[in-house]
This record gives sequence, C-alpha cells and structure tokens, in this order.
Amino acid sequence: MNQRLQHLAQWLKEQNHCFALLTSTANVFYLTNFYTNPHERLVGLLVFSEEEPFLVCPGMEVSQARDAGWKGEIIGYSDSDNPWELIHISLKKRNIKEAESIAVEKEQLSYKRAEEVIKRYPNASLHSLETKMNELRLIKDKKEITVLSAAAKLADFGVKRGVQALKEGVTEMEVVAAVEYALKKKGVREMSFSTMVLFGEKSGQPHGHPGDRKLTEGDFVLFDLGVRLDGYCSDITRTVVYKKINEKQKEIYELVLKAQLETLEICKPGIRIGDLDTTARTIITNGGYDKCFPHRIGHGLGIDVHEYPSMNSKNDGVLQEGMVFTIEPGIYLPDLGGVRIEDDLFITKDGCQVFTHYPKNLQIVT
Amino acid sequence: MNQRLQHLAQWLKEQNHCFALLTSTANVFYLTNFYTNPHERLVGLLVFSEEEPFLVCPGMEVSQARDAGWKGEIIGYSDSDNPWELIHISLKKRNIKEAESIAVEKEQLSYKRAEEVIKRYPNASLHSLETKMNELRLIKDKKEITVLSAAAKLADFGVKRGVQALKEGVTEMEVVAAVEYALKKKGVREMSFSTMVLFGEKSGQPHGHPGDRKLTEGDFVLFDLGVRLDGYCSDITRTVVYKKINEKQKEIYELVLKAQLETLEICKPGIRIGDLDTTARTIITNGGYDKCFPHRIGHGLGIDVHEYPSMNSKNDGVLQEGMVFTIEPGIYLPDLGGVRIEDDLFITKDGCQVFTHYPKNLQIVT
Repeated sequence: MNQRLQHLAQWLKEQNHCFALLTSTANVFYLTNFYTNPHERLVGLLVFSEEEPFLVCPGMEVSQARDAGWKGEIIGYSDSDNPWELIHISLKKRNIKEAESIAVEKEQLSYKRAEEVIKRYPNASLHSLETKMNELRLIKDKKEITVLSAAAKLADFGVKRGVQALKEGVTEMEVVAAVEYALKKKGVREMSFSTMVLFGEKSGQPHGHPGDRKLTEGDFVLFDLGVRLDGYCSDITRTVVYKKINEKQKEIYELVLKAQLETLEICKPGIRIGDLDTTARTIITNGGYDKCFPHRIGHGLGIDVHEYPSMNSKNDGVLQEGMVFTIEPGIYLPDLGGVRIEDDLFITKDGCQVFTHYPKNLQIVT
Repeated sequence: MNQRLQHLAQWLKEQNHCFALLTSTANVFYLTNFYTNPHERLVGLLVFSEEEPFLVCPGMEVSQARDAGWKGEIIGYSDSDNPWELIHISLKKRNIKEAESIAVEKEQLSYKRAEEVIKRYPNASLHSLETKMNELRLIKDKKEITVLSAAAKLADFGVKRGVQALKEGVTEMEVVAAVEYALKKKGVREMSFSTMVLFGEKSGQPHGHPGDRKLTEGDFVLFDLGVRLDGYCSDITRTVVYKKINEKQKEIYELVLKAQLETLEICKPGIRIGDLDTTARTIITNGGYDKCFPHRIGHGLGIDVHEYPSMNSKNDGVLQEGMVFTIEPGIYLPDLGGVRIEDDLFITKDGCQVFTHYPKNLQIVT
C-alpha cells in the first residue's frame, strides 16, 4: 500500500468504518494512479483498515490499471456482469458479511449506487469520505506541484497562441481551434474544461460559450482555458483588448488587475480564506462595481479543475503551505463585456508562488 | 409548459409524486433547452403536476437560461447562498410544506444532494425519474433526428481529416490535434468525448488513450470520435491500416465488418435488443475470436453519448421507430491491435437508417 492508502486505512481504523468505497475518477486516481472515466460503468476502489485494497473495473480496462502501476487485486467485469454482486462476493471472501459503517464519497456516489450498497449492507450507515479525501488532497506534494506547474505552463502557451490567432473577423471558435490545436500538438490529451474564448459583449458572461461571434476593433477578448496533464489541471484567464480601448474598458481592467494583485499579495500560510474574496470584492466595490463580480475569488485546483476548497467570503479555513488554488476576480458589464484575470498558485512556507506567467498588464493586441 | 414538461407533469400526477427535482445537464436541457454544466454548483429544475415548473441556477447563468428560451421562473443564487434553502422557501410559497413522494434522478443525484432533499422533506421517499426520462428521451423527434444526423456528418468529417493526417512518424496526439482543429474550425464547441486515435498494438485497448506512439507501416489506426452539436452527440469508430496489411489483420477486419453489417441488417422495429449483441457475438465467436469482443454491441445515443438503452445480450427490450443508437462490434488482440467499426443509426418504420457514412470497406492508407 502506498502512503496515501495507508493514511486512508489508518483513518478507517480510527473511525471504525468497515470499509471505504471510492468511485470517483479523481480519488481513484489519487490513490491508485489509475486515471479512468468509464462513463456509466463502475470503477470502484475498496479500502479496508486491515485487508489489502482491491479495484473493480470494466474488464477491458484491467490492463490499463496494471500499466498505471496498480499491483493489488483487480476484479474485471463484463457488461453482462453485476459489479455490485462481484464486490459483495469478494467482501464475503474476506469474511465481511455485515457492515455497520461504510465510508463513501457522498458528493460523487449516486443515490442509486448508494442504494446498491445499502441493499447488500442494510444495517450500515454511510459516512462521508470527502472531508478526509479533501484533507489528503489539499496539500500537494512536490511531485504534484511539479505537474501542476507544468500544466500551468501549457495554459500560458495556450493563451499566447490564442492571442497570436486574433485578427479582424476571426470567430471565437476559430481561436479556440487554434489554441487547442497548438496544445494537442504538444501532446495535451485533454483540456481541463471547454476552452473559453469570448469577444466583446460576450465576455460579459462569466460562463459564456464561444461561437461564431467575429472579432472587431474595440472588443475585449477573454481567454479562460486549461489543460489536464498527467491527471492534474491548470486554469488560466486573461483578458486583452483588440486594437483600441475606451476609458471604461481601461478603468475596469485596471480595477480587476488591482484586485487580483492585492489578493495575491496577502496569500500566505495562516490567512483566512474568506479574506481573499473580501479583499478583492472590497476593491471592486470601492471602485464602483458592486454587484458586477458575481462569483467567488477562486477554487482549489488539482486533479479536479474545481476542487476543495471553495474560496468564497464565508470560508473560515486558513491557507496552508502546499495548497494550490486560483485567484480570479472579474467585473462583467452586460454591453461592454467583462474582464477576468486568473492565476494558479501555491502557498509556500511564507508566501505564495504563481504558476501561470502570461503577462497581466493591459495588452492592446494590434 | 412545453410538451415534454406536460408529459412529465402528467406522470407526476399519475404517480402521485409531490414534485420532481431534475439536476442532470442532459435532462434539464431536454426539458428546458438550457444546456449547462456548472460543475459542483447546482442547477435544478422543479416540476409539479399542477404548479408551473421553475429553474434554480447560479446567478451568472440566468441570462443564458433566458437566451435558451426558458420563460418560467428562475431563481439565481450566488456562491454564498444555499440553493437548497432557496428551493425550500420557494416550495413553501407554493404551499408545499411536506412531501410524501419526490421523483429524482437516482443515477445522477449524489447521495449528498439526496440528503439535502431528505433533510427538508424527512417523510418523503425518493423515487426514480430515470425510467420515465429514459422513456421520454428514447424516441427521438424529427428535430432531434436532424441534429443527430448533422452531428454524425461532422464525425464522418473528423475521420476523413484524421485519415488525411496519417503519415510516417506522426504521433497519435498529432492526429487528434488535426481532427479536432478541423472540427472546431467548423464551429464544433465540444467533442462528445476525448477523441481516440490509436496506432498498432494500442488499438488493441478498447478504451486506450492516444499518446506519443508514432505511426509505422503495418499499423492498424483506430479512430473513435464524435462531436456535440446543439446538445446532441455523435460517435463513430473506423479502423484503417497504414501502408501494408497482413493476413491476420485482414481476417479480423473482415470478420468485424461482417458482424457489423449483419447486425445492421436485422435492425428494425420489434427486434429484441439483446439479439443485436448476440448476432454480432456469434459471428465473431464462430470466426474463432471468442473472448476478443469484451464489450456490448452498442448504446443509446442522444444528449448523452452513452445513454439508455445499454445494448447488451441480456436486454429484452425491443427496437422501436425513432430509437437512435450505435452498433460497434470489435475484436482486440494484445499484440496486433484491434478493429472496431461503429455507426450511429436510427430505427425507421420498417428498418433503420445509418447516420454515419464514412466508408467501411477495408482501407489501406498509403
């Protein structure tokens, strides 16, 4: 068992849980190094306090689990098997016939799958594994920091290529195509989310979709993109202006940049997470753009592009060395469009280090 | 209320469910035309037998829901709001203070979200909406057929571009990049899943990942790709050979093609779904490749790339006019690689019509 599994096994023992069932792509990967997303098919990792853990996955993925380095037992099943029955039988073989307490990913496990568990262990109560897994995953180790940093470099490169693709009349989707082509040619298998390139008034939608809007002089261009590299995500946002800029655009750009930089400035161990949001929000509000920043300041980043913690004003947690997250204030105006500036960073011993390096000073692309 | 919502409201009445809560991207889209995936944030559609339905979504997505044509009430929430409380308050306003029976998507709703519901309606039992939604979504209407057909055309185009990109020494990921670039330039926002291009022995992994494997003479090249167009997916697989072919490759190619064609041949209303799998499997087994076809013959296709029904040998359902699904037999050998041939099709009044048209006869790319 690797160290992460040992931590989990120890926790199961302390909590007196009979076993843990993990079914999310991210947690299974974190614990086994096997990254898979078999859609509606089940991948399950069973972990015990004393017994060796085992993996259940579609038969056709067994060799990939092996290639990923999983040395423990694997139960491969076919599409006509019932994997829940196979798990049940396997637990019986380990003399686990009843269970009082089972740890599951309550936020991931579907109600239907929970019913499959409860049906076989009717006396069991289901307890959340998420807090423990979040705690384990929160602090990134050196290897993770290295991968996250490399993923961020690719995001920088994506923005650079995107800016290079800007020209009169180009569509948002053509720029998306150029960005992703350049990244995939570099070996990126998967973007961490659908690449966002929004022009003009469309940049005013924090979660807008790129389409056939054509670029014209005076448009904001907002890029929000990231890659998944070796299982870990990056997530960068940059906003540039095409050819010319007006005073209002300049004002909101400089205000968002100020909010972003001043928030980064206070990132170090011991700072209350909610204060990051409040710092940026106060600057934006004082600048006259109350209500134009309708989302949180950031989110944890790792195997999931949005992971624990959620960095909103109510979060009373504190920053710790090794945490990786985004800082991404924005201002959105319905007609003019919006500005968002987002970096990925990690908390060091006494401050923070930003992973994303694409320049943030106001850029007028000509 | 549109016709789909009316069907659902009618069903709620018949079943005596107090209300339905839908939270999946696909079902919310099917019922509202609002396509969104706000990651961990909640999007919920509340449907009643008598009351008007309403939508709950992140505040920053309200305008997109309106743009998608949703004319009913929308409750937008901020990251510091608790959307479950907002739903609860909204139901109280409708004089719904208790509930005995609530319909939810058991396969989609997380156990944690189910707990949020149960906490507020402790006397309620949760019932599955999925069977009803699957039944509604199973039979595609004319508009859906048109979109699915257009999505399939783009998949054909993707394979064509992929074949054009084949040359000595090119990597799998370079071909993926070329395929997706061509599609995104045509305005495709999203692939329906990670594009798969596998060379040589790697094509022997039914769910392998493209990487830096370089193309060489004598390799199988397996393409499995699809796009999402206006919310609907396509999914095509083609296998070609690069420059030269050996007898074994030819044998398995012809056998898979035979299995695929003969399965398509029997597709018409009234046929037992499991018989499609059995038809293909028998041909492959009789050809001497028992155990080399480790997955089902196909799956329903629509808003989800893998949707109801699962077309395995045990499925006793029958084909009906308007059903859309894939037929995709394959043979996989660990060293030589694999062949899979997959079409998308729909059931007509007395047969079937295939959406995907990229040629299936054995192609040796030179």
